[in-house]
Amino acid sequence: MNLDFTYKNPTTIHFGKDSLDKLTEELANYGDTIMLAYGRSSIKKIGLYDQVIDILKESNKNIVELSGIMPNPTYKKVVEGAKLVRKNEVDLILAVGGGSVIDCAKAIAVAAYCEDDPWQKYWIDFEPISNQVVPVASILTLAGTGSEMNGGSVITNEAVKLKMGRVFPAEVNPKFSILNPEYTFSLPKYQMVSGIFDMMSHLMEAYFSNEDDVTTDYLIEGLLRSIINSAKIAVENPKDYEARSNLMWSASLAMNPLMGLSKTQDWQVHMIEHQVGAYTDCAHGMGLAAVSLPYYRKIYQAGLDKFVRFAIQVWDIEKAGKTKAEIALAGLDALEEFTQECGIVINLKELGATEEMLPKIAESTIITGSYKKLTTEEVLEILKTAYTA
Amino acid sequence: MNLDFTYKNPTTIHFGKDSLDKLTEELANYGDTIMLAYGRSSIKKIGLYDQVIDILKESNKNIVELSGIMPNPTYKKVVEGAKLVRKNEVDLILAVGGGSVIDCAKAIAVAAYCEDDPWQKYWIDFEPISNQVVPVASILTLAGTGSEMNGGSVITNEAVKLKMGRVFPAEVNPKFSILNPEYTFSLPKYQMVSGIFDMMSHLMEAYFSNEDDVTTDYLIEGLLRSIINSAKIAVENPKDYEARSNLMWSASLAMNPLMGLSKTQDWQVHMIEHQVGAYTDCAHGMGLAAVSLPYYRKIYQAGLDKFVRFAIQVWDIEKAGKTKAEIALAGLDALEEFTQECGIVINLKELGATEEMLPKIAESTIITGSYKKLTTEEVLEILKTAYTA
Repeated sequence: MNLDFTYKNPTTIHFGKDSLDKLTEELANYGDTIMLAYGRSSIKKIGLYDQVIDILKESNKNIVELSGIMPNPTYKKVVEGAKLVRKNEVDLILAVGGGSVIDCAKAIAVAAYCEDDPWQKYWIDFEPISNQVVPVASILTLAGTGSEMNGGSVITNEAVKLKMGRVFPAEVNPKFSILNPEYTFSLPKYQMVSGIFDMMSHLMEAYFSNEDDVTTDYLIEGLLRSIINSAKIAVENPKDYEARSNLMWSASLAMNPLMGLSKTQDWQVHMIEHQVGAYTDCAHGMGLAAVSLPYYRKIYQAGLDKFVRFAIQVWDIEKAGKTKAEIALAGLDALEEFTQECGIVINLKELGATEEMLPKIAESTIITGSYKKLTTEEVLEILKTAYTA
Repeated sequence: MNLDFTYKNPTTIHFGKDSLDKLTEELANYGDTIMLAYGRSSIKKIGLYDQVIDILKESNKNIVELSGIMPNPTYKKVVEGAKLVRKNEVDLILAVGGGSVIDCAKAIAVAAYCEDDPWQKYWIDFEPISNQVVPVASILTLAGTGSEMNGGSVITNEAVKLKMGRVFPAEVNPKFSILNPEYTFSLPKYQMVSGIFDMMSHLMEAYFSNEDDVTTDYLIEGLLRSIINSAKIAVENPKDYEARSNLMWSASLAMNPLMGLSKTQDWQVHMIEHQVGAYTDCAHGMGLAAVSLPYYRKIYQAGLDKFVRFAIQVWDIEKAGKTKAEIALAGLDALEEFTQECGIVINLKELGATEEMLPKIAESTIITGSYKKLTTEEVLEILKTAYTA
């Protein structure tokens, strides 16, 4: 743990089959007006909407609804929510849904009382927060982004075709999050496996950087092994409670500052995918998977020992008789086989991209990268490989 | 993650070479009177005492000193500290030292304004806290107990020969903890390796219970691998910053609710050691190591598959040509070899026990245990094996 860090994660997690029972006692800590933020019909289909409304009413709360939060939430939606918060003097934003709903709720929480242009200030200039932040809480229905236990908020500004992510300080984290793995049972398999790759990608972004023997790396390896094991079970039987609960908790940990501590981290895959997402509106995890394979195959030589370790510790690749490069590539092949086994789409064309989009995506991609800094041409090569995968 | 849980850990960790720089800004959040709690001379020897006093004075704080906190802090010391807190209306207890100092500070924090007998109420009857709790913070100088990031407080009541541990709710956690691995450099090797076994024992107590494929188990395996790897380096070169920093952070995570979530856990080793400690005042980690080997060898058949997994995932034991029992025992042999390699004492006689003490220790041991519940006779057998190890 050579690099200094500060770690703080004050979110209270209520996890399990009966976790919704904790909502009443948590609500007692907040004022009367609750904004219920959610997506489209899924929380109504599983009966959760009615349950939450009942608890809010029993707790004598005034309910302000913000519905229709979309995957890849838009800045327009943030502005709509912020107006509602100010108008109703909302005391708590209760996000019920997946990462998009929670990301949007956090964006609303910081934007509502911002006197300047929130988009410019918080998502472009990355300024520190200087205004009141409305408390956020969540009830999670989709495992993947980890938004339920971090300060992350990824917002798409359609007007300027930019998808920007930011991790706010812990003050913006949900105060509490309720995680019942059963809420994820009815999710279509397509979204489940997209979420699985999303959490794995968060861990790989942290793992693949030069501080190579820190405790964080060992934790990431353990968590990846847990995800891979449970993913295979959940793909066969989406109602396996143990597997789904492991995946839900793994997602919360994967995109938690905990799993990146004392690491410079990479994040190039996410930077490319964000622009893929801005152009195609594809499922985030699928976009990440499509970009990851050609990206890692392009850079693995620059971080060879770590890719060897990844192959051995995460994918149980046998060393005997192989060169380091062969071991490293066997690990990446195992990752690709895993995506196939799970039904994760890694072809950008199938995810809605067109050939014309690729240069625009490449040019608008922010370059981060740890082992190697890509050129725009190299980003384009990666996109072209992913386009025909 | 089959068992429901609530997880909350609000402690802010400032970690690294320059982490003491954060003290001034943290102190600004508290009132004027700070109780500086510490042990004997070690924090003076490394110059930390003077640095902290300077920062407190620059921050215009009134300093109340409580010195002489001993390893295995006594209830008598808690009472002394509680009186000082009340008398001086202390706003923050700043514990500077190892786990004993921080455990004692937390005990003082809950006892100071308790109207009843705090020992009976909080360490015997395990009642919920119903009085004001004084905020605690810490500057850690010894990696091992994890007290810097949890609500645990183990106190020895000499009058009744009882060493009792309790994990208080997160409100009792240190508000912030400053972890500079360099503070641990001057620690005698005896104490360093005792701390190493302590953190490993915390993880094994959580690992060895029946929920056998939860995410927590994978994290524990990763963390144990990290500890074993760094311990070997630190034993050779105690000033290897990477190894010592990995160990320091591993200790904070090891005895953190995080590493026991959704597990029933075992804790029999700690229950036996607590009574060994009450009679001998031995180093906690050494006592744990002495008890662990005969204990696990006695119970491994009852949790065979988990001991097999432990051997393979943590100790890289080859499966080929071995029975399950052989694999499991090879893992425990590897654990014993590791204690020898590190210079960890596993002989109870050498740790100060006498033959006459053993029956008293056995009779006063609380039985917890997950795979198997011991009888008092079996505890005595374990103690006798450890006595001649």
